Formats: sequence, C-alpha cells, structure tokens
Amino acid sequence: MSVSPCRFDEDGRRVVLASPTAMPQACTFLWNRRMLLQLNCRGYATAQFMQPEPAKYAHAPVLEAKTFMQPEQPYYAHHPGRFCYVKDEDSGLLFSAPHAPVNRPPDAFVFSAGLGDVAWTVRCDGIEVELGVALPPDEVAELWTLRVRNRSGRPRRISLYPYFPVGYMSWMNQSGGYRADLGGIVCASVTPYQKVQDYFRNREFKDRTMLLHERAPDAWEANQAAFEGEGGLHAPDAIVRRERLAGGDALYETPAAVLQYRLALPADGVEEYRFLFGPARDDAEVAALRARHLSADGFADAGAVYASYLEQGHGCLHIETPDPWLDAFANHWLPRQVYYHGDSNRLTTDPQTRNYLQDHMGMAYLRPATARAAFLHALSQQEPSGAMPDGILLAEGAELKYINQVPHTDHCVWLPLCLQAYLDETGDDALLAETVLDREGCGASVAERIDRAMHWLLAQRDARGLSFIAQGDWCDPMNMVGWRGRGVSGWLSLASAHALRLWAGICARSGRAAQAAAFDEGAAAFNAAVNAHLWDGDWYGRGITDDGVAFGVRADAEGRIYLNPQSWAMLSGAADAGRCARLLDAVDAHLVSPWGVAMLDPPYTGMREDVGRLTQKFPGSAENGAVYNHAAAFYLHSLYHVGENDRAWRVLRAMLAGPEAEDCLQRGQLPTFVPNYYRGAWRLHPRTAGRSSQLFNTGTAAWLYRCLVEQLFGLRGDGDALRIVPQLPSHWPRARAWRRFRGAEFELEIERVEGVRGRRITVDGEPLQGDALAAVEAGRRYHVRVELPPAVASAEGTAGVSPA
Amino acid sequence: MSVSPCRFDEDGRRVVLASPTAMPQACTFLWNRRMLLQLNCRGYATAQFMQPEPAKYAHAPVLEAKTFMQPEQPYYAHHPGRFCYVKDEDSGLLFSAPHAPVNRPPDAFVFSAGLGDVAWTVRCDGIEVELGVALPPDEVAELWTLRVRNRSGRPRRISLYPYFPVGYMSWMNQSGGYRADLGGIVCASVTPYQKVQDYFRNREFKDRTMLLHERAPDAWEANQAAFEGEGGLHAPDAIVRRERLAGGDALYETPAAVLQYRLALPADGVEEYRFLFGPARDDAEVAALRARHLSADGFADAGAVYASYLEQGHGCLHIETPDPWLDAFANHWLPRQVYYHGDSNRLTTDPQTRNYLQDHMGMAYLRPATARAAFLHALSQQEPSGAMPDGILLAEGAELKYINQVPHTDHCVWLPLCLQAYLDETGDDALLAETVLDREGCGASVAERIDRAMHWLLAQRDARGLSFIAQGDWCDPMNMVGWRGRGVSGWLSLASAHALRLWAGICARSGRAAQAAAFDEGAAAFNAAVNAHLWDGDWYGRGITDDGVAFGVRADAEGRIYLNPQSWAMLSGAADAGRCARLLDAVDAHLVSPWGVAMLDPPYTGMREDVGRLTQKFPGSAENGAVYNHAAAFYLHSLYHVGENDRAWRVLRAMLAGPEAEDCLQRGQLPTFVPNYYRGAWRLHPRTAGRSSQLFNTGTAAWLYRCLVEQLFGLRGDGDALRIVPQLPSHWPRARAWRRFRGAEFELEIERVEGVRGRRITVDGEPLQGDALAAVEAGRRYHVRVELPPAVASAEGTAGVSPA
Repeated sequence: MSVSPCRFDEDGRRVVLASPTAMPQACTFLWNRRMLLQLNCRGYATAQFMQPEPAKYAHAPVLEAKTFMQPEQPYYAHHPGRFCYVKDEDSGLLFSAPHAPVNRPPDAFVFSAGLGDVAWTVRCDGIEVELGVALPPDEVAELWTLRVRNRSGRPRRISLYPYFPVGYMSWMNQSGGYRADLGGIVCASVTPYQKVQDYFRNREFKDRTMLLHERAPDAWEANQAAFEGEGGLHAPDAIVRRERLAGGDALYETPAAVLQYRLALPADGVEEYRFLFGPARDDAEVAALRARHLSADGFADAGAVYASYLEQGHGCLHIETPDPWLDAFANHWLPRQVYYHGDSNRLTTDPQTRNYLQDHMGMAYLRPATARAAFLHALSQQEPSGAMPDGILLAEGAELKYINQVPHTDHCVWLPLCLQAYLDETGDDALLAETVLDREGCGASVAERIDRAMHWLLAQRDARGLSFIAQGDWCDPMNMVGWRGRGVSGWLSLASAHALRLWAGICARSGRAAQAAAFDEGAAAFNAAVNAHLWDGDWYGRGITDDGVAFGVRADAEGRIYLNPQSWAMLSGAADAGRCARLLDAVDAHLVSPWGVAMLDPPYTGMREDVGRLTQKFPGSAENGAVYNHAAAFYLHSLYHVGENDRAWRVLRAMLAGPEAEDCLQRGQLPTFVPNYYRGAWRLHPRTAGRSSQLFNTGTAAWLYRCLVEQLFGLRGDGDALRIVPQLPSHWPRARAWRRFRGAEFELEIERVEGVRGRRITVDGEPLQGDALAAVEAGRRYHVRVELPPAVASAEGTAGVSPA
Repeated sequence: MSVSPCRFDEDGRRVVLASPTAMPQACTFLWNRRMLLQLNCRGYATAQFMQPEPAKYAHAPVLEAKTFMQPEQPYYAHHPGRFCYVKDEDSGLLFSAPHAPVNRPPDAFVFSAGLGDVAWTVRCDGIEVELGVALPPDEVAELWTLRVRNRSGRPRRISLYPYFPVGYMSWMNQSGGYRADLGGIVCASVTPYQKVQDYFRNREFKDRTMLLHERAPDAWEANQAAFEGEGGLHAPDAIVRRERLAGGDALYETPAAVLQYRLALPADGVEEYRFLFGPARDDAEVAALRARHLSADGFADAGAVYASYLEQGHGCLHIETPDPWLDAFANHWLPRQVYYHGDSNRLTTDPQTRNYLQDHMGMAYLRPATARAAFLHALSQQEPSGAMPDGILLAEGAELKYINQVPHTDHCVWLPLCLQAYLDETGDDALLAETVLDREGCGASVAERIDRAMHWLLAQRDARGLSFIAQGDWCDPMNMVGWRGRGVSGWLSLASAHALRLWAGICARSGRAAQAAAFDEGAAAFNAAVNAHLWDGDWYGRGITDDGVAFGVRADAEGRIYLNPQSWAMLSGAADAGRCARLLDAVDAHLVSPWGVAMLDPPYTGMREDVGRLTQKFPGSAENGAVYNHAAAFYLHSLYHVGENDRAWRVLRAMLAGPEAEDCLQRGQLPTFVPNYYRGAWRLHPRTAGRSSQLFNTGTAAWLYRCLVEQLFGLRGDGDALRIVPQLPSHWPRARAWRRFRGAEFELEIERVEGVRGRRITVDGEPLQGDALAAVEAGRRYHVRVELPPAVASAEGTAGVSPA
C-alpha cells in the first residue's frame, strides 16, 4: 500500500493533504450555531443552515429531495462547490483551484483543514492560488479569502474567476444578477410551497444567495448556462472563448455567481481578495452582512470571535503519548467533534432521542451546563407511560421527521447511561431532584422520571423476560424482526439490564435503597433471561423474530454473529468470565477485520424472509457488514470494562489510526473526525472495504471521548472523588495527561517502572491509598504520578487489529 | 433573427433538427401505457414509469425530490441521458453522439423526432453514428439501435462506447455490474423507505436498471467514478487513458452502464447493434425482456405493435391548407398529444380533476369510449355536496398529492364544458341517464350528478352573487386572494355562468325544461353580478380579495388586466357587443405580445400584500407574465365564438407557428407538441420572452384540437346532425379537410368564390339548407363543398400577432 499523502501539522491542529487525487472524497467541516459547511478537498462543498429547518443556499443542479445527512455523498461536476478558475491571458492555460472543475494536475497542492478554518494552496504553471474560508460564529455566511502569487519569476497577465455555483434554487422562481449597489451577485428565489399556511412560514426564509466582493471585479456572469456554453465546466465558453465575462443574468434559469478579475502580476506580485458567500432574506440583510464582515478587519474580527467560540468547547483532557496521531486527534479533533454535536444538535430540529442524549453526554466533558439543560429538556418530552419519544423537538413548530416517525424501543436505555457520565463528571447530584414539567404540565423529579423510564423498559418484556423489539431498537434497519409485536431483541434486553444496573447504582448513592434493589433485581432478571434464551454456545444471539426464530446465531449462514450483544453482555454483567472469554474469541474470529470490528458477519446478501425480515434495508449492500464505529465504541468501552486493555487498544487504533497509517488511503478520509462507519464486507468486497462514510454525525464521538478520558486515561469522577485507573496498552512505556475536573486541574504522568506491581499513585508527591482522590478542590492544580508494572505483552500491543 | 434549423419531414410526420446547439433545450417525447420518455436533442433524457406511482430507472447524480413534471428542466453534464462515445483508436479523436457529453461540433447532425420513434444521425471525422429508439406498447423498456458507418473512405479502427448513466439510485443500497448470464449491465438498488407498511408496497418495485446488449461487447464498466476518473464526462479516463474498459463494478457507489465495442471498419463498412434499457424487478424479468425484444425481429415486432397502438389514437380530422405547418401539426402532432394525455393521464395516479376532464374531452375526438369511461369514473368520485374532488384517483392506494391537497373551487365547471364536446361528437345522450355509484354507494344518474355540481357552483356565491375563490380557482398561484373565505373570482363567476348555460342547453335538449330554465337563470345571475361588480370600463376585473379590493383592474400597476375573464365573458354571454369590442381592444393593447397572448399584464415583480396576496408563487419571475397556452386556447375558442376569425387566426399562429418560423429559435422548441407556456414579460425581459416551457402536459392540446375541428373547420356535431360552419382566416382562399364523425367520413372542400355572399354548402352535390347536415349515416362517405365570400381583409390575416 502506498504511503498516505496527509499528515498532522501545527502540533496536530491542522490536517494537511498534499494531493487532490489520492483521496478524492476527503473532506472536513466547519460549523457555527446556525450553519454547517462541509468542504471536500477538491472544492466541492455542502452547506446547510437552520431557518429553523435545515436549508441550503447552494444547490444541486436539480431539485433535491429533503432528507437527513447522507453518508458517502457522491460528487459530480455540478455538485455545489467553491472554485476559482485561473486563466493565463497570454498562453490561454486554464486551471481551477482547489482542483475541480478543470482537474488539471497541480504542480503543488495543499489542502489544510484547521479547527476553525480551511485553506488550500494550489500552484500551476508558476501561479499560486491560496483559498481560505472561515465562518463568523453567529451568522450564516462564508468568509472567503483568495490570494494569488506570481511565482513564475516573470510578469504574468492572468484572469481570476471565482465561481460559486448556486444551482437549481426553486421551480417556482429563480433569478440572479449583478447588483452594483450591493457589491456582488445576488440570486433570488421563492421556496416552493403549496399550502397557504406555508406562505407565512416561508416568508421569513433567506431565499437569496449572494456572492459579495470587497474589490470590484472587471466583469461578471450570473447565468450558469451562459457561463458554461458548449465548453462545459471544465472549459467554460465564458472563460475560454471570451476575454471578459458577458455580464449576463439568470431569469427563471439556473443562476451562478462568477466574477472576473483581470490583472497584470509582476514577478512575485501578490493580490488579495475577500468575498462573502451565503444566504440573505433581503437587500437590507445583504448590506448589513457586507458592512459587518467584508474587510480585512471584519474577517479578523470574525476569526477572533470564532476562536473564542471554539474555545468554549475545549476538551477536558490533553494527552502526550508514544502515539502522536492519538495526541493530535484526542487533544483537538475529537473534542471538536463532540462540541459540534452538542452545540449544533447535528443541525436538526428533532434529533433522535438516543442521539440527543449521547451527544450531550459528550458535552458533559466540555460544557456541562449545556448537557444539564439538554437532559432536562429531553425529560420534559417524556410520555406519561414513561416511554421516551423517538425524537426531541428543539424548535417551535418542529415535527418528528424521517426515521423518527417509526417507533423504536431503546430510547429509555440511554437516560441512565448518559446521566451517569454527567453525574460522574460534575458531581451534580442535585439534578436528580429537579422537577421537570412534561407537555401536559405534570411535574416529576428527574429521578422519578428515570424511574418511570426504567419501569417502562421492565414492562416491555415478553413471557421469557426479553425486550420486545417492535419496529426496531437502536438498529434502524432491523425494522421487521418484531413488527407484529412478538419478536424480541437480545441487545435491548442486555442494554436494559445495563441501564437498570447503572440506575440502581445512582439510586443507591442517593439514598434510594428500595428503588436500587428493585432495579438491580430487574437487571438480574434481564441478564438471566438472555442467558437462558440467547446464549448460543460461543456468543449471544441478536434476537428472536415474531416467528420464534433466533437470529445472530451459529445456525445462520448470514448475520451469524452481531457485535452489540457481545459488548453489552460484558457491560451488563450477563457474561461471566467463561462466557466473556468465549465471546471475545468469537468476536476476534468473526468480526475483527483489518478495518475495525464489524457490526455483524457474514454480511447479508439478501432478505431473509424466513425469519422475519432482517436488515431488509441493506441486504446486498457493502454497508451491510460495515464497521459501525458507534457499535465499535461500545465494544471498546466494554473491553476496558473487563480489563482487556490491549484488545481495546487494537480496536481504538483500527477506528482512528493516524494520517500516516498505511490504510489511510483506502479509508479515503482525513483524521479530522471519526466517521459513523467504515465499509465492511471485507472478505466479500475487498475493493471497497474500509472506505469511510465521510459522515461526522455519530454518537461515536461522545463515547470515544468518554473511553479516552475515563478508561484509557482512567480519570473518572465518582461521588466527590476522582478515580485514577489508567488502562494503558502494554506498548506504552509512559504517557502524560492534563485533565480539567470540577474546576481543578490535574497533571498526570504515567510510567511503567521495573519492579512495580499493581498501581502506585502519588498526588503532589504523596502516596494515594486506593485509586480515589477524594474531595477534589476547584481551583487547585494537582500533580499525579502513576507507576505501572512493566508490560508483559508489549509486542502484541503494537500489532494492528487483524482477524484471528 | 436567424432562420430555424428545423423543418417538417415525411409529409409532416417527422420533425427534423439540423443542429445540436441552435435549440439546446429542444426535446420530443415517446410514451406507451406504462412509461414516458422525454428526449432532448443533445441526448439528455427523462424517463418515468408507473409502479403505480411515477418512478425512474435513470437518475440524477443526487437524490431527487419527487414532484410533478417540471417546466424548463435544466440540463447539466450528469443529467440522465443516452449517449455513445466514439474514439478513433489511431488518432485518439473522441466525440459523443448525439452531442453531449463531449459536445464536439459535428460535421453533420440530424435529430429526427417521429411519431413513434426518435433518431439521430451524427457525423464527425468521417464516422457516422445513427442512434434510434422506440418503445414497445405495453412494457417499460427502451429499444435502442446503434448503427455506425465509416464514411471516411479509408479503413478505420474505432471503439464505440454506449454510455447510459444510471445515476444515484438509492441511499440505502445501490450497485451495478456486468452479468454475462443476462447479457448486459444490471444495476440494483433498494428504494428507500422507513415505514414498515412501505416494505410490502416496495417489494414489487422494479429496482433494477439494465442495459442489455444483443452483441457481446469487448469490455464494460459499471462504476461511474471509475469511468470518469479525473477526465470527467467530456474526456473519461476510462476511454481516453485506457485501451479497454476495466470491467469495474459499483458497490454502494453510483453505477453506470458503459459498454465498449472495438471494431475495424473498412471504408463504407457498417455495423449495427441493438440494446434494451429499462427497469426490471428481478433476473427473470430481465431475461424475459431480452428474450422477447432483443433481436431484429423483436424490434420490428415491437415497432409494428406500437404503430397499431398509435393508430388507435388517430385524429378525426385531416386538413390541407395554405399553411403546411398547420397541416403537419394538426394532422399528426396535435392529435398525438391529445392521445398521450387521454391514454396516459399524464403519468399520474391522481390527475387534477379539471385536467382529467379536459384530457378526456380531447379523447372524445379520438376514442370516445375512453372519454365516456373517464367521465363516469370522475363522477363516481363526486362528493355528496355536489363538489368535485381536487384530483381523480386512478389506482388503488393512490392519494391526492402536491397541489391536489389544496382545495380549488373550479372543478365542477369543467363537467358541462367537457361533456358538451363528448355529446356533440358522439350523440351519446344515453350517457346522461347512466347511473353512477359514488364511494358511499349512493347511485345517481349522470344528469343528476351534474345538476348537483351546478347547484354547488350556485351555492358558492357571496352576497353579490360572485363565486368564492377560496384557496384558488383554475389558477393555482392565486392561492391567497380569498383564503379567508370572502374573496371572489371574476373568472370563476363567468366560468360558472358559461357552464350553467351549456348545461341548461343540454337539459333543454333532453326534455328537462324546468332544470334548463333554472340553470339559465343561474347563468344570467352570474353574468349580471359580474357586470355589476367587475366591469372596469374597458375590461373585466379578475376578482375581489378578502379585503374587498378589486384586482386585475385599471387602477393596478401590476396585474392590471387578466386574459381569462375577457375570454370567458365572451363565452358566457356576459359581454354584450359593445363590451366585447372594448375588451378585445384592451387585450390587443395589453396582452397581445410577439409570443402570443399573455395571461396577465404587467407581470408582477413583487408580492402585493395590500390586496391579499396575489400570485405570490411567481412574483418577479419571468414566468409570471407568461403566455399560458391553455388560457390562450380559451381566448381562441371565445374569438371564434364571437366570429373574430382573423383575430383567432393570429392567436393560433402565435401559439403554434411552424418550424421555419422566424421565432422558432427564440422559442427553442420543436413543433412536436404545444407547450403549456411560452415565457412572457416580453417588455421586461426580452431576452427570455417566448421561450418554451418544453412541457407537453397541458389542457391546451384538447382545446386546441376542439377549436380546429369545431371552429376553424366548423365541423361540430349537434343532436343527430353535423353542423358545417368553417371560420377560415381571410388569407386562406381555400382549404380541404377529411373528418371522421360518428362512423361516417366527410370530405370537405372550402373555397372563397367571387360573388358568394354568406355561406353556400353542397353535400354530395346537393345544396344544404342551413348549416346542419342531419341524420348522419355511419359508414357513409359524404362530399361537402363550402363556398365562402371573398376575403375583405386578407392582408391583415397574414400578419403576425403583434401588440397594438
């Protein structure tokens, strides 16, 4: 395998890619409170903003379906993007930065993804173009900088053509033209609607798309077809066949925003331009955005304010380990991804309940007050039965959409799991006594509401004591296993047991012994039922269909083993040591792949009509046997839970790896986020196995962060104490960490020392009895040293995850 | 203006275009009972089929919104299409037939749209490619023929690459690969769904797309991205950089169907290939389609059966006039368009009620039994109140979609209008006594049901006696004029009057004198109310808003005058001779444009919030002041109604014109159909004015046909008679026609003869008293000669429609 062309830069705070063709799907993203901008290394872009539902201001060339954010979105010539054509006026040579649409092989290329900005440097034929973009923190606008340098050593006459396609805005009305008064190209549309009531909602929409310039251009074009002519996007007639753009408009035609700057650049000459691209409601808003931002100072101000916005999502852990890629990812990119989830709620007005809770579990480590408010908000939408709804409505007028209209049975499970993390991190047990009013105006404390949620889980069991799956548990595609009301979920039964155990622990700690006992008993009953009905000899089955057929069992030719039941049997305590050992071996044998741990194996190649209908949404697709990182994160969590530190390390490394890793090219992704899946089916489809979904919306981020903080580095809150139980892989001789915890700071050094047995902890030079540092004082800085015994299997620790 | 590159060929039965760039949007369409194939001259294509809702088997590169058929759909590089790349293996020269995606200027080009097939001939560098497509009558499949000829006079080594993009099939699952066993590329997908019940509906879907070949290719490629590489569609890497396609597959990637034939062609050598492209449910269906069609005999059989299908929609009129473009259009293309509407119901399962009734009014002239069944079917969905629903459901499980979910108030109007045409054409008065059961199982005769519909119209009046407009009458965009329940529609009041008058006439003829009197009285009341409240001095206003503001009146700066109230005031009898003269002058002054008669003027450039909200869907768009041909057809109808034969001629000519017409290029459309609109706003936006919508779904076709048959040629049924009242434009010295009528045939010659006053008719040589030929005998052939007086204003008749 060839070596990856990407690397971390600036102490891990940038990810740099040196080729536009090696990883053509590679992308990164910027966001603020109102918008999201996903940028592909070749210049394609997908932007969304909230009004209040997600909307776009640069569109496909055809009316797109409204749907949730898709994985592996395909790029094609007319995909929305941000480009700058460059034409040599003398030689006629044409290229485009970053790369598309001309796709000329550059002499030099850098795509540089920062935490708060994205930049490209592209050189062709002695002309170097730098493109950069950043966002203001509270507005929907892209702030673009274009810099051109003559590195050819001789004077050059060139034209620059910033080209920001606007696409098919509306079948009702779309137009575009140059507005000298506003300083740019402004395109207008009317969002299609048919019902009278929608008029009143839509009239506030930002239905204009603008490309505003700081320096006036020499020419412009606002008509997509006129721009392309017969030449097409790779050689537009307006550029190739004309000296100047013709200044056309779009009238109920597809608009485009194209400017032309004609310049004579001396050797080493530099010119700089600033642009603002985004939506607006009316002329006044266009003018206001220009006035506020479109200047060097405005850009600098926005950058500073955005930096302070990012700072509010700073992680609670900083590490220094023998694996610098992990340091970079854990210190900068993972907490950023966690912050994105928690602060933007994935740009939806009805996040799935399980996602919302887990995203805010992640926020507990960054901005606990946000997490607290989110838990209270979620509980305010609990149903009288104790059930949680399928999505949490965040905006007035929001509705449950897409998959949230299909009932799933797992949402209650996530309450104790996520709350546990919050309570451990904050010690804010007072939350449990907060009164939450539901929609009917009935009040109940947080503790009472979670009691009810647990009772709901206990009630949703069949005669065997297993959880009904109905139209799906966590796993959306498994919607027909139990839709007739009889099928059960092994995973959900184990997850319920785990949730009940955690909640019993919280109840016990807060003096609610009777509840604790009852919930513990419930957990034990779940575990017993799963052991009685779903232990298949070497692993746990996934469930039993409406027709009484167990699946995810050795008798199955496809979907024989599922990962989730194994992880959660370890977490819930269902699996004793013997069963743990057997199921770990089974996971190694069946699910561990070169690309991580698959969710199931073998992949389904067709519908199994005989056992209910399994995974009917994906049979035959490569995604079907994918490495779902969210599930892999739970496997990681459960491996640490049972002390399998080296196994855990291998899962972690397969999930993340560094940019220099050998498999980076195959994954095709930059390590600026952990994706929701990597392609699976590695035996069936080796060509595509390992490929990243490029989708950064995933509960993986929060759980992974939790695993790093609380397990790998073992710095977990517990009552008023900080527990210190690092679980380093055996190939690490030492590691350092900085941890923010309840207003205190901890500097941690961990070292393997010859002769040490067990764990030896000193705090500020004083030996610590046990692993709990009690009564943590806010404002204080602690120095913690942990000495571990030498590794016994350090060679194994450096090996990749590989099938047994 | 330059001369049009298109012309009629083969006695008008083909329309031929000699340039791929002169009219880049130009298209034609083929259809059968299950599918529709719209073909652009450059090779772009849009195909739909029913399962039972409209579906596609070749997709955009992105998930498309499901919506109704759009006007002026934009084309772009990755738009679905059917192409064949040709590469010279020695010189490397590359072109694509018909034109896209390479867009190389051809040495010769012919796009030839036939009634039942479409063909291209494209020559570049001595290689001539012929592409042709036809459909079988009852299956969803495209039958493509590819012929290549070496016209260069020397041996050539070339590769042919049929390229049929398949696009983004599904976010759930998409794949594609070569299937040697099935003889082609087969792509598979799973239609996305989320609700359990949809699984059972979707499982019968034809979720595969296949390109089957007769002759085995030398190589193939099924992966869109691998095909394009860095070169893009205009110079695909797989073609430009490789000798042979690599044989790749698509796994959860965008598939494509590309084949490669490598051949050595001697001078004048010819090779021929046949392909089948379309959807299928499973392997068995793929194999069956191949077996049935994929051979020279199979193609010939399908062509023959399709020809007999087309023959079933043969027109009832054949004409020979001094304007051959009109002959071609009226004899072949217009009845074909009428047939398409009536037989396919516009490929929807819930046609709008007004469309369904008017489309089947057209069928009365072609296949009356189909029209009869449709009227009965529509009436079976009448509501107990007498109201007609907003759409007529045609398939089990169909639902009212899109605009049909918004209540409109005009549907009842169309019952008498359309039924009148059917009864006149067939004499089938027995229909009136047919019992129709509604959904509740209540029976009532057709006459009783239409009585109820008329009473419903009479009931929906305000205190002034004007019709409430509610959320819209015929005009969808006018949805906020009266949504609060007070606003009224001038047009609907006049249309109600017209409908009532017609129905009163039918009642009177069938011996229901009391009803006739009552409905006549109702009509008079409507007319009186409109004259009292909406006559604006020179024309009729369009309506009065919820707030009591009249609009479509001289006080308005925009939307000052609307066409429809003027036409319908002439039809309903509201306008006396004096008002007729004034409103005709007003239409000439305000609405008549070089491109036809606009629906309103001046176009709205913004929302008028002060008067309710007018045309809020289109303010500011070029479409806003469009020439809606459906409205123009009613103006035509009303002009003949009041004997304005030369004015009518000018409207007709502006609506159709011939391919050689000067304005053909500006319209950008081939005369294979009359489009639903031409762009308007000719004073405001001259660049785009006149441009065709390219949309062939329109009630215009049926009304235009009626105008030609019953008014221009004046051959209208009436009781048991045929009335003979031709209304020739003054510049026609003579014309001939053949008319099928109730099983008889009429050969008509019309001539202007010096000295004739009035009309002189002979039938089989015998003078006819009056204009009614009574007691028409089926099976008989009549020779009819009509002598008209010489024209007084023939010069005017040849002038185009132009503003006063």
